[in-house]
Amino acid sequence: MNKVFFPESVAVFGVSDSPSNLARVIVENLISCGYKGAIYPVGKRGGSLGDRIIYGGIEAVDAVPDLAVLLVPADTIPQTLEGCGKKGIRRVIIETAGFSEFREDRKRLEQSIREIALAWDMKVLGPNCVGIINLDNCLVLPFYPVDAEAVKRGGISFVSQSGGLLHDIMNRASLDNFGLSKLASIGNKLLVDENDVLEFLISDPATQTIGLYLENIRDGRRLMDLAYSTDKPVIMLKANRSQTSRQIAKFHTSALAGDDEVADAGFRQCGIHRPQDLVEMMDWFRIFTLPLMRGPRVFLLARSGGKAVLLADTAQRCGFELATPSESFYDKVRQKVRAGVINLTNPLDLGDLFDIDFYIEIIREASAEEGVDGVVMVHDYAPGVEVAGTQRLVTEAVRISNIHQKPVVLCMVPDKNDWFPMRALADLPLFMDGDTAMKALAVSRDHFRFCSRKTERPRLQGHDRSVRRTGTSPAVHMDTVQTFRLLASYGLPVADHQLIRSEAEAVEAACRIGYPVALKIALPHILHKTEEKGVRLNLGDEQALLTALRDMKGEAFLIQKMAPSGYEVFVGGKRDLEFGHTLLVGLGGIFVEVYRDVALRVAPIDEALALDMITETRGSAILKGFRGSPPGDIDELCRCLVRVSRLLADNPQIVTLDINPLILFHKDEGCLIVDARIEEDAPG
Amino acid sequence: MNKVFFPESVAVFGVSDSPSNLARVIVENLISCGYKGAIYPVGKRGGSLGDRIIYGGIEAVDAVPDLAVLLVPADTIPQTLEGCGKKGIRRVIIETAGFSEFREDRKRLEQSIREIALAWDMKVLGPNCVGIINLDNCLVLPFYPVDAEAVKRGGISFVSQSGGLLHDIMNRASLDNFGLSKLASIGNKLLVDENDVLEFLISDPATQTIGLYLENIRDGRRLMDLAYSTDKPVIMLKANRSQTSRQIAKFHTSALAGDDEVADAGFRQCGIHRPQDLVEMMDWFRIFTLPLMRGPRVFLLARSGGKAVLLADTAQRCGFELATPSESFYDKVRQKVRAGVINLTNPLDLGDLFDIDFYIEIIREASAEEGVDGVVMVHDYAPGVEVAGTQRLVTEAVRISNIHQKPVVLCMVPDKNDWFPMRALADLPLFMDGDTAMKALAVSRDHFRFCSRKTERPRLQGHDRSVRRTGTSPAVHMDTVQTFRLLASYGLPVADHQLIRSEAEAVEAACRIGYPVALKIALPHILHKTEEKGVRLNLGDEQALLTALRDMKGEAFLIQKMAPSGYEVFVGGKRDLEFGHTLLVGLGGIFVEVYRDVALRVAPIDEALALDMITETRGSAILKGFRGSPPGDIDELCRCLVRVSRLLADNPQIVTLDINPLILFHKDEGCLIVDARIEEDAPG
Repeated sequence: MNKVFFPESVAVFGVSDSPSNLARVIVENLISCGYKGAIYPVGKRGGSLGDRIIYGGIEAVDAVPDLAVLLVPADTIPQTLEGCGKKGIRRVIIETAGFSEFREDRKRLEQSIREIALAWDMKVLGPNCVGIINLDNCLVLPFYPVDAEAVKRGGISFVSQSGGLLHDIMNRASLDNFGLSKLASIGNKLLVDENDVLEFLISDPATQTIGLYLENIRDGRRLMDLAYSTDKPVIMLKANRSQTSRQIAKFHTSALAGDDEVADAGFRQCGIHRPQDLVEMMDWFRIFTLPLMRGPRVFLLARSGGKAVLLADTAQRCGFELATPSESFYDKVRQKVRAGVINLTNPLDLGDLFDIDFYIEIIREASAEEGVDGVVMVHDYAPGVEVAGTQRLVTEAVRISNIHQKPVVLCMVPDKNDWFPMRALADLPLFMDGDTAMKALAVSRDHFRFCSRKTERPRLQGHDRSVRRTGTSPAVHMDTVQTFRLLASYGLPVADHQLIRSEAEAVEAACRIGYPVALKIALPHILHKTEEKGVRLNLGDEQALLTALRDMKGEAFLIQKMAPSGYEVFVGGKRDLEFGHTLLVGLGGIFVEVYRDVALRVAPIDEALALDMITETRGSAILKGFRGSPPGDIDELCRCLVRVSRLLADNPQIVTLDINPLILFHKDEGCLIVDARIEEDAPG
Repeated sequence: MNKVFFPESVAVFGVSDSPSNLARVIVENLISCGYKGAIYPVGKRGGSLGDRIIYGGIEAVDAVPDLAVLLVPADTIPQTLEGCGKKGIRRVIIETAGFSEFREDRKRLEQSIREIALAWDMKVLGPNCVGIINLDNCLVLPFYPVDAEAVKRGGISFVSQSGGLLHDIMNRASLDNFGLSKLASIGNKLLVDENDVLEFLISDPATQTIGLYLENIRDGRRLMDLAYSTDKPVIMLKANRSQTSRQIAKFHTSALAGDDEVADAGFRQCGIHRPQDLVEMMDWFRIFTLPLMRGPRVFLLARSGGKAVLLADTAQRCGFELATPSESFYDKVRQKVRAGVINLTNPLDLGDLFDIDFYIEIIREASAEEGVDGVVMVHDYAPGVEVAGTQRLVTEAVRISNIHQKPVVLCMVPDKNDWFPMRALADLPLFMDGDTAMKALAVSRDHFRFCSRKTERPRLQGHDRSVRRTGTSPAVHMDTVQTFRLLASYGLPVADHQLIRSEAEAVEAACRIGYPVALKIALPHILHKTEEKGVRLNLGDEQALLTALRDMKGEAFLIQKMAPSGYEVFVGGKRDLEFGHTLLVGLGGIFVEVYRDVALRVAPIDEALALDMITETRGSAILKGFRGSPPGDIDELCRCLVRVSRLLADNPQIVTLDINPLILFHKDEGCLIVDARIEEDAPG
């Protein structure tokens, strides 16, 4: 990928001298932004562009460009690409739109692109994109006019499935004065996808923070592995939340692990930060230009009581602690304060202490305090008179931030005259509002915490063959006895059971198993057995068993040992289109069905992650012993979750798995699986 | 209050010619902003201010000013106020700070202000405030320089407990070009509080939307009555969320109905909209300058696929429906569209259809569609070339919005040159981002829905004597038998029971009541009886009863009829400091304790509200008949809630009430209260 971002020469296809020609704009961008490499405009009608010749074909160019950018009609793409291949060009960006995103039947066109690219071993970005912007070498490839000078160079890089968002990020960065490094539009990601670019950006020394906008995820496991491998913050704006066509709740797991829930869980598991919207993403970019918040203790300052109260409110809502600075800190402040106008507390209401240089002193002293992890100040300043002082405050805040490697966050609403100049003043990004700043700061703190707790973890991608198996063959239900056998083969404790087809077999089986027993219709498609009267519990003797059996319709039945009572737990597995096998756990029955109180992870998991999952559910309060009830055997539950996770890894054909219920007994007494169902790919 | 906002003359106290004098700034503001009434600067050292005389005392003024503004040292306030009284001044704003907000011992000073004000029948705002800004008559009273011309006149008025927020709102309004009418800083609200100002603003014809910033609420019931009485949107930024010093969970209700939960419930009940933070409040101000969203159907347009997807995501997340315009609408669009570049759908991705006038056409046609309740467009435009077109789009959107009385919301990120001019162009407020706009639009829709469903409702304030009873006397527990008697007297079904003190009494009582019975220690302070082994259930005969009795420690016990099994429901009541009596309901046991799944309302409620409450809890799915279980007697539960609400209204001394559990039987089979506790003010 390096040569895609740092080519020494670029050929642009589709150029003409017509004023409405878009490929021309690419060439103009490269020139006006100051790209230093060679530029070869190519267009079948030839001609010239100012003093530059437009080559009639790539053959006419007497060099092999490092990169070709194609903006020619969709149906001429294959032949152009073939030409590039012949010429020896190995990196191509196809900006042309009108492929599968527009009409289903254009998939064939995409297929031929794929074949040509593979034949010539070409890296191809797009189609349907706006290319790349690299501010390191002024490589500016969109087909709309870009003013690269409007944007500062910095550490934020961005990958987008939508060209529009690339434009927008650039625009917003220029307005807010934060620095960008590389932007890549990946369009229909026919060959190069988000992970390829992400991998490059992780290794790119100029990139400090990585943003992504995606509408779908090509390979969630590789994404997770990549994000986990780096300490650079990865911020993901994931769209298409609501388009999940959730299956009708045949399986609990299907209903509980919708596409968006899986994405959410996957992101959390590998430390990807997911904002709700674009504005929030920008706030997070902003906070990550500051040193990380390495702990929970904030010191807060505001120039009005109201703002101080609001700040403290949000601080607590975001899980921060109000720092308690040392007495010597307050002594220093006290010496400066006019008699009796402000209370020395955190948050510090600066009241009518109109001395900006003193604010700087306070911030300096507070940042130096060992018990302070970060400082947030809401600085409402008077337009005009306080501008110079405020400028000092902004530049000093940057210095202090860097010296102590702690974030000093300034919030202010400059007036019209200072709006842009105040932002242009320093690398320190300004927030408009304390609450926004605080919420962003919480992400900085979470990032630090996540990175500092990372452990050696096996790569996810190597542990699942289930990704991208979905969608082709229809799924079928596994027979109950077979399901139980599979579970048992992984050391999962399944209640003693036997398949019977006659009264004689029933009596014999019940005798062997021991009364009381349960009787179930052994049909995989009876889903909520209790509702459909397909199950009879607690049959105490032969008479009860036979009466029940005669009352039921069916050919095959299961006689099963009644489990002693315990906590009902639900364990599920689901193969996700983007992330492969996932694992769920929650208290069974209403807890899952009414409250959707489940924890979800991408499999496989280890015992530590299993315990995390259990603890994450609110219902775990009950397993831990609630109101005097004895605690459940959580250790054994953890071990079972790990076994289920291993079972899923070994069986990529499994679409959905419901273990419901697993009866969890008291501490050290284990558990028993009473019912389970598996849906898998139809054979063949 | 009218004369406070529209005085014909103003005296300003505390003025001197010193450059650091703050009262002087008030006079200068009045003059520079163009206040037309008479201005009388008063300051004990006399002198002059430009060509204006500073009166040495109010006696020297040869008129009685309509309003006095005091900014003199705190300890001289009583005597100045007394002087105002003598002079005949009946409206005073005290801007001086340093009262109870700063030191507890200053409460005495406030008390003397209160007495003087009452003696002279004066309306007094403050102390500790920045006064009023009324753009109707250019009454500008803050003691910091205000540029009233920077702000447009409009329909938004704002009441703030913090002076700093007043300044901030004014500043932000000027930056975003939305129009303000009246701003009032109420400070310590010693005599005039938020409700007095709110009442005035509701009646003020120039005010269309009312914002409030409060740190505490003086009288929640009056606030609710006022908000319910108007269709003007009332937007409340309520701080001090986290300062709730929740009682340790002695009573469930206390833990479940924290101060902030009560405020939330109260606001929802009367249609007050509560934003999370200042930025959200501004977004809501912005949306309410447009016609209301009268239904759920939005039509969405964007210039990039990514933005269209994000818009649709948020629309669905906010509960909107994607409108389906008529075929004739799409026909009109189709005629204009270049062959095969955009798909005609909602959201409409305008792709590379670069024709702003055509966008205006689409918006016009979409707004005229009967099946469209509002239009949102994300307009990312090219700086420079598209500015003129975009200006037309903005002005036309206002026109279309007004013609059809449907919101047309534009989202755009102008570049630096257009940043302020684009905003100044029209009354239509611009959003920076589609998601923000959509969330605000949801509030507009909710407001319309709430107003259109209002019913005749008794005034809350007249129905509760519990407000502001709290805090003085200690609370005591009511005896269980007395509690049951009180409940029964309101027609609430209490399980048959009898207090006993000996084995003989026990046997006799159980005989009368009929086995099986429950036995409980009759001490009010045993709270979770099951945990403390203070209760034995299901005693089937005399022998079992006596064994249980001998095993328990205590002097008095309750023999109680065992209730048949049913759904356990929790009903609670709590007297809130700001809102008076509130009512709670939820499924009992773990539902309440683990999931906090309760509904909360300010009492009294009627049966319709009771049903709302029940439906609001997620656990109600279980009462409605879950997985084949029979439904519970919800009608009877509603009636019981109304009875409890009446009981609370009649008994203002009740601090907390826990009915836990109420056993709800199947439909038409009623319910039974098995346990209940009441905490009330100690007598005397």
